[in-house]
Amino acid sequence: MTVPQALPDEFALIARLFAPLARGFPGAYGLLDDAATVAVPAGEELVITKDLMVEGVHYLPDDPAGLIARKLIRVNVSDLAAKGAKPLAYLLGVALPKTVTLAWLDAFAAGLTEDQARYGMHLIGGDTAATDGPAVLSLTALGTLPAGTMLRRDGAKPGDRLYISGTIGDAALGLRALRGELAGMSAAAREHLIDRYRLPRPRPELGLRLRGLAHASLDVSDGLVADLDHICAVSRVGAEIEAARLPLSDAAQAALEVEPALLKSILTGGDDYEILFTTPAGRDTGVAAAAAAASVPVTQIGRIVEGRGIRVVGLDGKPLPIADGGYRHF
Amino acid sequence: MTVPQALPDEFALIARLFAPLARGFPGAYGLLDDAATVAVPAGEELVITKDLMVEGVHYLPDDPAGLIARKLIRVNVSDLAAKGAKPLAYLLGVALPKTVTLAWLDAFAAGLTEDQARYGMHLIGGDTAATDGPAVLSLTALGTLPAGTMLRRDGAKPGDRLYISGTIGDAALGLRALRGELAGMSAAAREHLIDRYRLPRPRPELGLRLRGLAHASLDVSDGLVADLDHICAVSRVGAEIEAARLPLSDAAQAALEVEPALLKSILTGGDDYEILFTTPAGRDTGVAAAAAAASVPVTQIGRIVEGRGIRVVGLDGKPLPIADGGYRHF
Repeated sequence: MTVPQALPDEFALIARLFAPLARGFPGAYGLLDDAATVAVPAGEELVITKDLMVEGVHYLPDDPAGLIARKLIRVNVSDLAAKGAKPLAYLLGVALPKTVTLAWLDAFAAGLTEDQARYGMHLIGGDTAATDGPAVLSLTALGTLPAGTMLRRDGAKPGDRLYISGTIGDAALGLRALRGELAGMSAAAREHLIDRYRLPRPRPELGLRLRGLAHASLDVSDGLVADLDHICAVSRVGAEIEAARLPLSDAAQAALEVEPALLKSILTGGDDYEILFTTPAGRDTGVAAAAAAASVPVTQIGRIVEGRGIRVVGLDGKPLPIADGGYRHF
Repeated sequence: MTVPQALPDEFALIARLFAPLARGFPGAYGLLDDAATVAVPAGEELVITKDLMVEGVHYLPDDPAGLIARKLIRVNVSDLAAKGAKPLAYLLGVALPKTVTLAWLDAFAAGLTEDQARYGMHLIGGDTAATDGPAVLSLTALGTLPAGTMLRRDGAKPGDRLYISGTIGDAALGLRALRGELAGMSAAAREHLIDRYRLPRPRPELGLRLRGLAHASLDVSDGLVADLDHICAVSRVGAEIEAARLPLSDAAQAALEVEPALLKSILTGGDDYEILFTTPAGRDTGVAAAAAAASVPVTQIGRIVEGRGIRVVGLDGKPLPIADGGYRHF
């Protein structure tokens, strides 16, 4: 943050910060109307999701504004990705402290600009307000897909293979690193983990290739075990994870070697924003082709079983007792 | 508020409070998935809007929770209405203090239940979070209309007639009454004004009948003059209002008789949520038919002129100097 300065009024702010983000989407009407129109091509339907970020809860007050904006877009794009939808547009609601500076707002808008281009989206509407408390950022993201093809949580079947994209646990370890709780890390490894905590890597290119292939899918935000439990609960199945199969970054592997108990953080920590999905057995080739086409590694980490409950087989081959510790807001 | 009590966890809260509001909308998946799907009939398009409400700014901390919920739905429905869209669904983001009680949440959900039924909408998604500051409520509303028929702000033409639905100024006078600034009011008149401030009456039945009839349309939230100025700015026209034509409730009329200076509050106060629209000359019959079919009174209050600026002709027939004092957040 820089020295506070007088801000333009709400309309001038919208014209300066947000109207440029609507250019190229005719139904946004340059953010000069009360609402946007969205046309959906025949045979397609919209996928809509909404995630909040609260200052002090989902990010720290002195995090760079551009990173906060990019995280806000990415946590929502991650939901679209795991559902198999192609990102299209978003609406933005921001309740900001009156002490916010123009420099902060410009950096926030620059972050939106960068990542909406990355994911092929436009800003089409929203609202701004002042609050006496911490900032609250609300984003509603819209994507499209062929009607009836959304990847659901509730389609997992016993015998399904369980896959995860990318690497798991980096974000939880990054948060620990920020808190000074990780010993014996190289600067590069520490930086890698913190970066993964601060900036999710959603996988829309993978997600849309999982349509017609995956039985169930979601993005890991509450933690691997907690989110797997979400799939299992609504699919009425159980699951088994083999810890030895978990895809770990070099940095996470190094941290785990120093402190084996971190395996629990890797299994239950949140904010990974990788896609966790199941497919029927025998689809290995299809999954590998989807992963290759999306340039995203995908790893089989377990399977879906009859009954309820999640079993984790530890690195020693023995059952690992684990609580399903997802993040709870209340 | 009642005595604080332990709250169920986030998932139990969603199941208790919000999942019932999704019943009857298959694409909401019972709020058990990460996103909703919305199918749009051929030939139609979606209209999307998003309005925030912040505790202490848009409502008072001890306002009844049910009224807050209903106002949140209604300010968004009002945007859809003025655009000519039929309400369909909404997503809800709530950042709430950790001190919130289950009784408050139940009353909030009851308010949503009542008004989503009134306007034919379903809850299809959203997010909940805790905040250390005042509550921030974010609603994204979706409506539908025939493609290309959205009522815009930018279509007003010189010679157009200017109309307003319902009565104007009640909400601004209601806020003054709450602050003890209105003298000589009967209890009934005072109650009427306060009720209009607390609970907007959006006009979706009128709005959809204005498609193909109105040149420009919006809902009055910032104040009659400020919102008329929004139409004029993007339409590149001016306007003239005749104060003697303003439709006033009996209560507003009584307040004005006691204190003639209140005319300025009536012209510039916000929160009326009536539809302000223009039509070409000679559409009186069509406007009257739309008003009758919607059971909403509509009054011609002026006209659109060449040039810029808004002139108000006072009750004495002389020009009334007036600043365009809409509510500004920053």
